[in-house]
Order: sequence, then structure tokens, then C-alpha cells
Amino acid sequence: MSACELCDSDGGVLIARRAEFRVIRAADAHFPAFYRVIWNEHVAEWTDLAVPQRSLCMQAVAKIETVLREALAPTKVNLASLGNVVPHLHWHVIARFDWDSHFPQPVWGMAQRRVDPPAAQRLPIALEALDARVAMELATPGRD
Amino acid sequence: MSACELCDSDGGVLIARRAEFRVIRAADAHFPAFYRVIWNEHVAEWTDLAVPQRSLCMQAVAKIETVLREALAPTKVNLASLGNVVPHLHWHVIARFDWDSHFPQPVWGMAQRRVDPPAAQRLPIALEALDARVAMELATPGRD
Repeated sequence: MSACELCDSDGGVLIARRAEFRVIRAADAHFPAFYRVIWNEHVAEWTDLAVPQRSLCMQAVAKIETVLREALAPTKVNLASLGNVVPHLHWHVIARFDWDSHFPQPVWGMAQRRVDPPAAQRLPIALEALDARVAMELATPGRD
Repeated sequence: MSACELCDSDGGVLIARRAEFRVIRAADAHFPAFYRVIWNEHVAEWTDLAVPQRSLCMQAVAKIETVLREALAPTKVNLASLGNVVPHLHWHVIARFDWDSHFPQPVWGMAQRRVDPPAAQRLPIALEALDARVAMELATPGRD
């Protein structure tokens, strides 16, 4: 066992695995369309990567953002690499909606409202279908 | 007047201006080493940019992160493109320290402690010197 939870486990619902990184969906009831690009090697900062690796990482982020926009038409997409608690490089890609529990606050901010029915039921497609579209886009070279 | 504050003003202390984007320092007493890359054109999402523009934008983000790491040795760098309140593309680049008011929470989360003396006085170099290093790095081609 290492001391890092992202070295010890996938860190969520596995959507795609590459030699350099994996993409998972976070199981978050408030923000169901919440994916992460997790670099496989244990590095803390984005600039710990060489320039071509940075591009590869951001290309995955862009592909996920593109699918979320096309499939969900969210109010906004939120991108972030923080890692204060788990300093193992991971990028958050989150579809936000003006009706979600925290909007317009960041997902790490204060809740603004109760959401009922649950957020996942309000998405225009099922999460399994969204996962499949994300996986297909990641397997498709070149659009980004 | 447009309806967008990032169309109407620089949005902070101007550090560098390019045809495509500008870099400003946010005047935030809690997080003094807080820069933003603001795209000049009014677009909401990172993937609204063409691929070469995305790279240009992230190259600026990487340059700022590199300077923050070299000049300040922060505990962590936080990167984010949110824009829920101001949907005009801007990237946050923030040096975080284990002693700062919110660490390990995101800057948008709950404060964890009072910091005294003020955060800017705890940085190893003055903000004006940091600004100058960021501006110099942005003017230097090729390292990233």
C-alpha cells in the first residue's frame, strides 16, 4: 500500500484506461456528470508533466468537455486541477446546471438549494449512456 | 457597456497583454499569488477555442504555474476554469500554502483559520517582484 488513494485505486467508476492516464466518473449525487482525468504516474502538479504529456492530458479534458456539452447542454462546464487533499494529478470536468444544488457556486462552495428529484434524474440522458459517449470520444483520435 | 465585466475591464492588476489574452493578478488578501489568464474574446467555454488557441491559453497557464513554483515553492498550485458567475473564459492560477486561510479547502470553500501577519507578508518575495517574474516568463518563448 502506498499513502496515495489514487495510486491504490482507480478512484471512481472506470470509463477508460490509457497507458498514461485513466478517466473515471465520480459517484456524486449532487453532480452526476462529474468526470476526472487521473494521471497514472504519481505526480503532484500539471507542470510536472513534460509538454507533450500536458497536451495529452488536456486533450482528454477537452474530449470530455465536448461530450458533456453535446449530450447535456449544461449551463457551464467547470474544469479544475486542485489536489490539495490528494496531491496526485487529476483534472475535474463537471457539467453544471443553473438548477444544481450549488450553482453558481463552485461544487466546493456552499449549497444554494435542495434539488428534488435527484440531479441524475434531471439529465437528458442516462448516466450509462453518457459514460458510453465519453468512452467512445476518448477512443476516437483527432477531433480535438 | 456590455453586460460582461471581463469585456468592460481588465479584471485585475494587468501583468501582460497579448492579442489573444491578458494576464492579471487578482487583488485577493487571502491568496496574494493569484493570477488569471483571461481570454480577450468573449467566449464561455475552453472548448469554444480552436485547438491551437487552447494550447496557447494553457501555455500561459503553464508559464504562470512554473513561475509560482520556482519563486514561491507553494504547497500546491490550483488551476481552474469555472465561470459560473462570469461566463467569459478565464483560468485561475493560484499558489496555495498549508498555512493559508482555506488550505486544504479550495479558495471557494470554507475558511480554515485566521492568518496573521497577512498572507502577502508571508511570501518569500514581494508581489511586485513576482509580477515581474510572471511578465518576464510570459514574454519568453519556448520554455513550455
